[in-house]
Amino acid sequence: MDGVDQLAPERKKAQFDVDEMKIVWAGSRHAFQVSDRIARLVASDPAFRKDNRAMLSRKELFKNTLRKAAYAWKRIIELRLSEEEASMLRSSVDEPAFTDLHWGMFVPAIKGQGTDEQHQKWLPLAYKMEIIGCYAQTELGHGSNVQGLETTATFDPQTDEFVIHSPTLTSSKWWPGGLGKASTHAVVYARLITDGQDHGVNGFIVQLRSLEDHSPHPGITIGDIGMKFGNGAYNTMDNGVLRFEHVRIPRNQMLMRVSQVTREGKYVQSNVPRQLLYGTMVYVRQTIVADASCALSRAVCIATRYSAVRRQFGSKNGGPETQVIDYKTQQNRLFPLLASAYAFRFVGEWLKWLYTDVTQRLQANDFSTLPEAHACTAGLKSLTTTATADGIEECRKLCGGHGYLCSSGLPELFAVYVPACTYEGDNIVLLLQVARFLMKTVSQLGYGNMPVGTTTYMGRAEQLMQCHCGVQKAEDWLNPSAILEAFEARAIRMSVACAQNLSKFTNQEEGNLFILDIGSLKLFRLRVS
Amino acid sequence: MDGVDQLAPERKKAQFDVDEMKIVWAGSRHAFQVSDRIARLVASDPAFRKDNRAMLSRKELFKNTLRKAAYAWKRIIELRLSEEEASMLRSSVDEPAFTDLHWGMFVPAIKGQGTDEQHQKWLPLAYKMEIIGCYAQTELGHGSNVQGLETTATFDPQTDEFVIHSPTLTSSKWWPGGLGKASTHAVVYARLITDGQDHGVNGFIVQLRSLEDHSPHPGITIGDIGMKFGNGAYNTMDNGVLRFEHVRIPRNQMLMRVSQVTREGKYVQSNVPRQLLYGTMVYVRQTIVADASCALSRAVCIATRYSAVRRQFGSKNGGPETQVIDYKTQQNRLFPLLASAYAFRFVGEWLKWLYTDVTQRLQANDFSTLPEAHACTAGLKSLTTTATADGIEECRKLCGGHGYLCSSGLPELFAVYVPACTYEGDNIVLLLQVARFLMKTVSQLGYGNMPVGTTTYMGRAEQLMQCHCGVQKAEDWLNPSAILEAFEARAIRMSVACAQNLSKFTNQEEGNLFILDIGSLKLFRLRVS
Repeated sequence: MDGVDQLAPERKKAQFDVDEMKIVWAGSRHAFQVSDRIARLVASDPAFRKDNRAMLSRKELFKNTLRKAAYAWKRIIELRLSEEEASMLRSSVDEPAFTDLHWGMFVPAIKGQGTDEQHQKWLPLAYKMEIIGCYAQTELGHGSNVQGLETTATFDPQTDEFVIHSPTLTSSKWWPGGLGKASTHAVVYARLITDGQDHGVNGFIVQLRSLEDHSPHPGITIGDIGMKFGNGAYNTMDNGVLRFEHVRIPRNQMLMRVSQVTREGKYVQSNVPRQLLYGTMVYVRQTIVADASCALSRAVCIATRYSAVRRQFGSKNGGPETQVIDYKTQQNRLFPLLASAYAFRFVGEWLKWLYTDVTQRLQANDFSTLPEAHACTAGLKSLTTTATADGIEECRKLCGGHGYLCSSGLPELFAVYVPACTYEGDNIVLLLQVARFLMKTVSQLGYGNMPVGTTTYMGRAEQLMQCHCGVQKAEDWLNPSAILEAFEARAIRMSVACAQNLSKFTNQEEGNLFILDIGSLKLFRLRVS
Repeated sequence: MDGVDQLAPERKKAQFDVDEMKIVWAGSRHAFQVSDRIARLVASDPAFRKDNRAMLSRKELFKNTLRKAAYAWKRIIELRLSEEEASMLRSSVDEPAFTDLHWGMFVPAIKGQGTDEQHQKWLPLAYKMEIIGCYAQTELGHGSNVQGLETTATFDPQTDEFVIHSPTLTSSKWWPGGLGKASTHAVVYARLITDGQDHGVNGFIVQLRSLEDHSPHPGITIGDIGMKFGNGAYNTMDNGVLRFEHVRIPRNQMLMRVSQVTREGKYVQSNVPRQLLYGTMVYVRQTIVADASCALSRAVCIATRYSAVRRQFGSKNGGPETQVIDYKTQQNRLFPLLASAYAFRFVGEWLKWLYTDVTQRLQANDFSTLPEAHACTAGLKSLTTTATADGIEECRKLCGGHGYLCSSGLPELFAVYVPACTYEGDNIVLLLQVARFLMKTVSQLGYGNMPVGTTTYMGRAEQLMQCHCGVQKAEDWLNPSAILEAFEARAIRMSVACAQNLSKFTNQEEGNLFILDIGSLKLFRLRVS
């Protein structure tokens, strides 16, 4: 079978218009054209080669990333790319880099939490990359529990400054991408303290390194936290550690859109509702779901092609063996992942609509759908990232021994993807938040609070608890409403059963511990590093 | 909490004798003493350091492995270590190396498949490491289907030689550990052809490289197949590719214990039963199950310590937060893995007994328990390695973001472990073999063939199909026979239901494809590289 194109006959079997499907996948003809053009541009430019990543030492790997980031920036300017095209170019370069945090977290944090004055001062510098920023939230001792962060920002009315300090080992900032080597600035989250009073966690713009020679500023200890999972993967990123020894910054570097500290050291809340910040969370989670479909589709593509080419057993009279894609056991593992990749793609598009909807409502001071939108995005983030991480690993196994070689692409896809299960809300913690929301929704049924959004079906609880499945024969399952009703009936029954089980345990140790698990997890802020 | 030993209070809570448990875990006081002494010896010797592995480039990493292997050999001789101690030392060095294949596959293959004469010639050379051997079975195009291997060994009666040849691209040997750089010799599996007739796959001792300057012999193309999953992991191993261009070896380098080729080119089978070879399979799988318990226990140990030290949420009045080990969600994920590590340890010990039993029966020409022993070890290999690979990854996630750092040890534990799901029988393929055996056993119930070994319970099918669980209250589950009977009842019911479902599909496409999946997998030989 040497030298024969084994995929061509498989491709000819497609029963749909492949070019049309590309557009459906991209979301629109325009989106397809941009992504196709930029992807070709990146693929054809040897400066962006990535086949050698797994072989490089950490130092060479990181230098390579710096080179690519600088070159990408140069090309973006030379080609006068739009913001959409520039973002597509960065994602086509296909390796984590400090620029992800600069554009994806540092700039949005200033935009979302800064005042107009702060926008005018900092955004132009960031847009021109005259400063490079990162997002320093997570600490060695605190990830999920953002309210427990220990770094302090104490106001000194004598000098009109904040003193940023790391009081304990566990208060060291730990994980922020771009921090280890590249960033000149950071948005640092710290406990705001004025006149001995703790006002909780707020964001501050802090310069970390000199714009002259890139050396750390006095009082700042900074470094890279070392190797991570995989050969290339996130080792192209300089995730860092950061400690402050009484570092002083001007008062106007506190991000003051939502709350302020006056010249006199008085802490005041603005009339901007805090909930506005949650719009960002919906936005970030929407991109995570979109990324999940992208990562899973790449793994499925590799495993499908391999399954069509690979043959094993079943040779008759010396003829070719059976393509492994024709084995039920292979199909039963591979095809649901293919379907999931499409499902995640479409739910990602729907989340874009949800983001628009939430944003419009927030601007109209309508917070009624926020808990449901939060639970929905938390659940989808957890579901899609877990399924994608497991799915990539399953695709790797579907390629047998060959999936273990870096040349298959799968080990790196897995290693670079799995942190999505932990960052931006640990998946288990997020599921507990969803459970808590569902229990609350169930407990309020019948009290006039009609469930909204994706939980609207819970308003029909009584009917769904009693209904029988109308499916008589296999083809009936091709009716989407039959599937939908089955899921709704299953979901409400499981939710009600869970609520009943919980109620049994009230005031008993077991129940308390479970409630503790759910109850101790407050709605928390963005946690990407 | 800086600087406080957070583990000491946890350790004090043990309700069993920890020193006694160490001995139970090791299998005997003697085994514990050997392993403890050798582990300390390795841990205290800076030449065996492994903390820097993830940082090294591939070349440095491999050089490092060569250095360690040479040094380990030197120490084994200096300290006059017994075979047991030497093997313990190699496993304590804790990185895959060409020596694993030399001692674990090359030597046993010659021992098991070679004649007395061949033992006398080759074993002393191998024991003194004057030659280094590997096990060249898997090809680019054939892994599970060993009978489909394409490499040929054609007897040339003119010169009394075999001509070893790689006729296609897919016939290239691919994966053998130790082949890429280190080995001077290999046991090569190839189709034996005499007088135009194909006698199937046999083993041949082939010299690959010069003993003078280590250059490849004429007609041999050889190399390393590149980077594999993980930073260190199996990248310390020189998995290789090998092609033969009409390479000639003397006739007496065919392993002739079971079948021979005479001077005249006649193919004859000896009276040594082929089944004898399957004893080795039981042995190898027993070591794989033992390795599973070891790998899982290391991951669980890291995740448990982390869970005791890590605190998140639940602070009351400014006191310390809750240790994450006290959350039910953490316990529900972690504790079953801890239990599994012990269960795998004990079943590994039981497999040692099974190996002895099978060996004694084979020597007495009793093959009656062989199918059950094969199915049992296939099932246990698949179950324990899948659970261990998934369990290590779960432990990694239980450490949150910190589990993604190589310094946690978990990424490397995962990357070095997962090939166990594929080598020595792909786990899915093995499960199909178990399914096939179970279906056959069910179909023969009532025909006087009493099931043996671990399937003895199937002889009580009628009773188990009807029995009801005698458990009334939670404590009743503490009675092991209640658990055992529940598993037996569940297993027989599932097996019978599966057999009934299969019988429905006879002669229909669906059923045929399923049968094809099961039926096409013949009992296959050792497949470790």
